Amino acid sequence: MPLIDAQTLRRLSTQILIHAGVPEPSAASQTDLLLEAELRGVPSHGLLRLRRVVERIGNGVANPASVGRHYWRREAFLEVDGEMGLGPVVALAALDQIAIRARQTGIAVAAIHNSNHIGMLGYYAERIAQAGQTILAFSTSEALVHPWGGRKAMLGTNPIAIGVPTQGEPFVMDTATSIVSMGEVHDYASRGEPLPEGWALDAQGNPTTDAAAAKAGALAPFGGAKGYALGLAFGLLASSLAGAALGRDVHGTLDSHSICNKGDLFIVIDGPNALLDDYLDMLRQAEPAEGVEKVLIPGERGRACRAERLRIGVPLAEPLWSDLQRLAAEQEGA
Amino acid sequence: MPLIDAQTLRRLSTQILIHAGVPEPSAASQTDLLLEAELRGVPSHGLLRLRRVVERIGNGVANPASVGRHYWRREAFLEVDGEMGLGPVVALAALDQIAIRARQTGIAVAAIHNSNHIGMLGYYAERIAQAGQTILAFSTSEALVHPWGGRKAMLGTNPIAIGVPTQGEPFVMDTATSIVSMGEVHDYASRGEPLPEGWALDAQGNPTTDAAAAKAGALAPFGGAKGYALGLAFGLLASSLAGAALGRDVHGTLDSHSICNKGDLFIVIDGPNALLDDYLDMLRQAEPAEGVEKVLIPGERGRACRAERLRIGVPLAEPLWSDLQRLAAEQEGA
Repeated sequence: MPLIDAQTLRRLSTQILIHAGVPEPSAASQTDLLLEAELRGVPSHGLLRLRRVVERIGNGVANPASVGRHYWRREAFLEVDGEMGLGPVVALAALDQIAIRARQTGIAVAAIHNSNHIGMLGYYAERIAQAGQTILAFSTSEALVHPWGGRKAMLGTNPIAIGVPTQGEPFVMDTATSIVSMGEVHDYASRGEPLPEGWALDAQGNPTTDAAAAKAGALAPFGGAKGYALGLAFGLLASSLAGAALGRDVHGTLDSHSICNKGDLFIVIDGPNALLDDYLDMLRQAEPAEGVEKVLIPGERGRACRAERLRIGVPLAEPLWSDLQRLAAEQEGA
Repeated sequence: MPLIDAQTLRRLSTQILIHAGVPEPSAASQTDLLLEAELRGVPSHGLLRLRRVVERIGNGVANPASVGRHYWRREAFLEVDGEMGLGPVVALAALDQIAIRARQTGIAVAAIHNSNHIGMLGYYAERIAQAGQTILAFSTSEALVHPWGGRKAMLGTNPIAIGVPTQGEPFVMDTATSIVSMGEVHDYASRGEPLPEGWALDAQGNPTTDAAAAKAGALAPFGGAKGYALGLAFGLLASSLAGAALGRDVHGTLDSHSICNKGDLFIVIDGPNALLDDYLDMLRQAEPAEGVEKVLIPGERGRACRAERLRIGVPLAEPLWSDLQRLAAEQEGA
């Protein structure tokens, strides 16, 4: 894979977005989100998604100028109508407001609807926790996951991110509640490899290891019944408070033409944080199991990956790198 | 197992606590928590724990009179020093305050330290969600769970409960982040049955299916690396904000003599809740997988169990039923 310098990618993506009609600061935010995913080794949430952002603007289902309309329903409850804005642009504007408000009230929440794909939740958690506040972040998405004991996709991959400040780098975890991403299933399908058992159902709702069949089926929730319960709870929490669509009614995070009707929820807490560093060090230094190199702290592998990729460049699959250059040419010509 | 009428158990437990020096309203709260666990089919958090509550009062590590001291650090951030009070007594007093405050501010948080075992988190979630508010509840506990890829117990079973109001009965989920409870491992050991693979490590940190060996070892987190990440995040979140102990430094939820230094965290949100009922109905009616009777909504099996046990009585293991009667006699004689 070609290794592309992060600054080159940043300039390229920002220019593409500006040519698509996105104001410069918003183009920088959308780019930063996608690039951070590449840097942290989460390509499913990276520059692969840029073409869809541009197409959605072109199709009138993403408004490049909107930052969202804010309604303080209560002193610490911010309702946000994203006005079809870009996901990170709307999210960051809302987060800034509740981070400030939480300094006065101790905690504040933003519930966002009518906004586009928010991307990697850990991005927001890292930002808030780096600045010394605690955060919980939730988002809903298209139905891709089957309920435990069911046959059809009826839940989103309903991710959660949690960030807690420490003396050093903050603790940041970010995970979907599906056993694996649909992107990974697509990767298996393109390589012609069988899926591990238990990952997916086919379109008829039967267990399958055929990745091509799984693309038309459903992903398993991670962790069996408990993971299903958590994913469902995160989805209900965000959808209920954001007034967003649920389950199979959710659209617009995976296509280029539907208005995006999922919900996002951020809770920021400005509390006195006790020190976690000694405990985290103890975990880092814990004796690993047979065949395991070391006990990991969530988020730290991504942070190490980021440092390396800032140094040596971002590995991009050749088709994606070509497509980005084509996209830039198209936008310049447009 | 003898089936004991719920009112009989309520009277018995309340009397035992009153004789142990607990004021009547607090005795009723502690009893209600334990009895609800029995009714909902969670005996590990039920009346089995009553003797320990009484012993802790006797040993001076639980203060039967305390309801906790409240400090509003910010308008919507309540810090609670439990003053060694009974877990549910301190928790309910704090919850009442933040539920009222959230009506003004939209969201409020209580961070509790120096309080005793809080019991089944779903109890609190059910209460708040029944009253029309949304809730997230966390608590930390003694280190019983090994980090993913580690050998020793270094995390609590770090449970979470989430409650969201609906038009009908609220959605309430409540789960520990261990693959199974240590209580269940004890049950396997007492029956001499082998554990399923992947549940536990022995004292040397090696995988074991020997339940007796697992009692001295560690439980696996549920759901592999993702479940570990979530359990760790829930634990850090609660400990950091509550100023509570972490990992192997946590004591007092499983013994009768240590001051309890874990933390509890409640977040109550008073938002406009969108309707979830149609979606939940769709899940209830979803076609089940081969060999599965129906798709379940978390919390509903417990609610059905509760209705039945209120009608026919609570099945109590004979040794527990005898012990409760012995405990009552001891306390009356004391």
